[in-house]
Amino acid sequence: MGLRIDRIAVADLRYPLPPGAGSDAIHVEPEYCLAVTQLLCDGGKLSGTGFALTLGEGNRLVCEAIELLARRLKGRPVDELMATFGSTARVLADDPMLRWLGPHKGVVHLALASITNACFDLWAKSRGVPLWRLLLDLEPEQLVALLDLSYLEDVLDEKAAIALLRQQAPAREARSAILHEGFPGYDTSVGWMAYDDSKVRELTMRAINNGFCAFKLKVGSHDGARDLRRATMLRECAGRQGTIMFDANQQWTLPAARIMCRELAKLKPLWIEEPTHPDDMVAHAALARELAPVKIACGEHIPNRVVFKNFFEAQAMHYVQADCTRLGGVSEFLAVALLAKRFGLPMVPHVGDMGQIHQHLVLFLHIALGNERVFLEHIPHLREYFLFPAELECGRYRTPEEPGSSTDLKALSARGLR
Amino acid sequence: MGLRIDRIAVADLRYPLPPGAGSDAIHVEPEYCLAVTQLLCDGGKLSGTGFALTLGEGNRLVCEAIELLARRLKGRPVDELMATFGSTARVLADDPMLRWLGPHKGVVHLALASITNACFDLWAKSRGVPLWRLLLDLEPEQLVALLDLSYLEDVLDEKAAIALLRQQAPAREARSAILHEGFPGYDTSVGWMAYDDSKVRELTMRAINNGFCAFKLKVGSHDGARDLRRATMLRECAGRQGTIMFDANQQWTLPAARIMCRELAKLKPLWIEEPTHPDDMVAHAALARELAPVKIACGEHIPNRVVFKNFFEAQAMHYVQADCTRLGGVSEFLAVALLAKRFGLPMVPHVGDMGQIHQHLVLFLHIALGNERVFLEHIPHLREYFLFPAELECGRYRTPEEPGSSTDLKALSARGLR
Repeated sequence: MGLRIDRIAVADLRYPLPPGAGSDAIHVEPEYCLAVTQLLCDGGKLSGTGFALTLGEGNRLVCEAIELLARRLKGRPVDELMATFGSTARVLADDPMLRWLGPHKGVVHLALASITNACFDLWAKSRGVPLWRLLLDLEPEQLVALLDLSYLEDVLDEKAAIALLRQQAPAREARSAILHEGFPGYDTSVGWMAYDDSKVRELTMRAINNGFCAFKLKVGSHDGARDLRRATMLRECAGRQGTIMFDANQQWTLPAARIMCRELAKLKPLWIEEPTHPDDMVAHAALARELAPVKIACGEHIPNRVVFKNFFEAQAMHYVQADCTRLGGVSEFLAVALLAKRFGLPMVPHVGDMGQIHQHLVLFLHIALGNERVFLEHIPHLREYFLFPAELECGRYRTPEEPGSSTDLKALSARGLR
Repeated sequence: MGLRIDRIAVADLRYPLPPGAGSDAIHVEPEYCLAVTQLLCDGGKLSGTGFALTLGEGNRLVCEAIELLARRLKGRPVDELMATFGSTARVLADDPMLRWLGPHKGVVHLALASITNACFDLWAKSRGVPLWRLLLDLEPEQLVALLDLSYLEDVLDEKAAIALLRQQAPAREARSAILHEGFPGYDTSVGWMAYDDSKVRELTMRAINNGFCAFKLKVGSHDGARDLRRATMLRECAGRQGTIMFDANQQWTLPAARIMCRELAKLKPLWIEEPTHPDDMVAHAALARELAPVKIACGEHIPNRVVFKNFFEAQAMHYVQADCTRLGGVSEFLAVALLAKRFGLPMVPHVGDMGQIHQHLVLFLHIALGNERVFLEHIPHLREYFLFPAELECGRYRTPEEPGSSTDLKALSARGLR
């Protein structure tokens, strides 16, 4: 009969951050909180762990939503569940008792992310392979069966998704070199909003010494002059060859974004991120046109594949910062990746998981889908809490080899759950 | 010093529905649940009640979010709070501990709706007037101070909002005739999905006898032939002069919507409602172009003013079905109403409140803003639970005269809270 899900456990884990870390234009003193789903099999001998990130007290709302939503998985055989996960994802996303609370966004969708990610972790562990390997070993039909492509039919149906994967198959082997080279990272942790100028400078220089070539700075403070001063400083530190990005975390109104982005564009950033309200697709499209050749990046607050589809159709972004802890988990993340490929846009995930799961996903996307190898965000503040924290060497992620999706947490492992 | 908010109470109220009532293409057996906020003053002598609607078990998530979010209101003097409610609304919507769970959508935004609606009810009761009267008596500057217009600046800033209200002032008196005539209603309760054909026919004939001239039918079943048969039957019952609308509750994909809407359009409905996924603005815009002269109605699942702005800019809807129990309460509802006016679109609310609050709001919008007097949805299934249920005569809402926003619930009144 194979493994079945015997038990479902939920954990509300909260991790305080060092002073200033994680701060941006919107979040003054965030806590990094994980709303964790654990799926246990075989009397607890095997478990899958997934989570969504939130930034404070509301984490418990996501945990409760997980409890309401995950019940349907109890008793399900793992292999059967994952053979057609797309249909289960759709059933969970459309739970008639919870759907009104979204649909497909907010607390209930974060809960779905946590649950889905636990399913994928469990599946990879049950096969004894890292997630990237599991995904690479699937036939295109098997991969597409993991996805709910409903409401994408007008631009991407199952047949088109399978064709996209087949088209990319021939060059897979050449692209597999990335497994040995390591996926490049970029450092977000040099430029938090509350860090003073000297700290930003010091951390950037240290990151350069550690092999990083790309760095992100938080902007969108109430003091535009401060933003410009720090942005200029980052360009100086990074040098003309270094890659820099600016992240306004949704702070600016469209008129303010126009003024600030024009100034910041002079420093030749690769992108400006979340320049205004994340729901304002029309404003993003206007900025994307007006700021060329500077690019627009966004996605950490785009709730689902349908909204991504609209952003792509409206040419409202260039870099697709989907996040598998914000979308409905690995499944919807992969659907958005296929959609991005269809529109020719590079996926550069936002790492609500601190890169733990995404380090697997970017390897898969690059090798199987030919996703442009830009880089993966790096945020180190939770590394001490993971059993197998992402490891970077010379600014590159080392390819993870342990079974699963690198989501095991020491706090749960200590309770005998892994 | 005036009244202060002494105590905040939250109630999770759930009301089972008669068999089949409330059913649609997505929700098979809904419960109508209210996540209620009560704000108490003066040792409980005065209280304001607000709520958001949900359709089942998830209601408790909204209740918990209310508890987390409403704490900031404790001790606030009512008059001071409401003099600049727009800035409080923004602070609550951007609570840094909860914002990640939205932003401005889902559980946290439903909680904001419930809290905001309680504030407006309390304010009207403290003045001893019904909400519509309170709003009509405000100067344009006072009304606009109730709103958070951030992220609308590119199309509607405070100055433009005030100007819109001033422009409409001269014809106010003539439009006040509506107070005596009663606001027309339309009947949604004739056409729930699970009702069989004979019940739909019987209820429609009864509604006609009760003075209704407009009726809505749920479509979007898995059996397109059933939809068309019932739609044809409704047209026959309503006659050529009757107004009929079809509501697919998001069920169709865009390709399916194209096929079904073209067929349904032959029956000359006033609108087709939620033809596909509510987030798919591009699809709504395509259907709005293709189906003319049949109109597109939507809004009950558009989470906030920013998304409404985008839908208006994209010409993706004709009838604006905003709902003050879905948006961030009366405050954001009024912001969307001004925005709709700016784009020349009629507001025809969805009644997550069973029309209790919206009967006040449509009077205000018609008289103060010149909102086209279409009609207001009528759903009677919770009327026995309200202390002052909306009353209809000859298909028209009778203008409410009791102080407040008609949100008092018997269940809470019985506990000594009103």
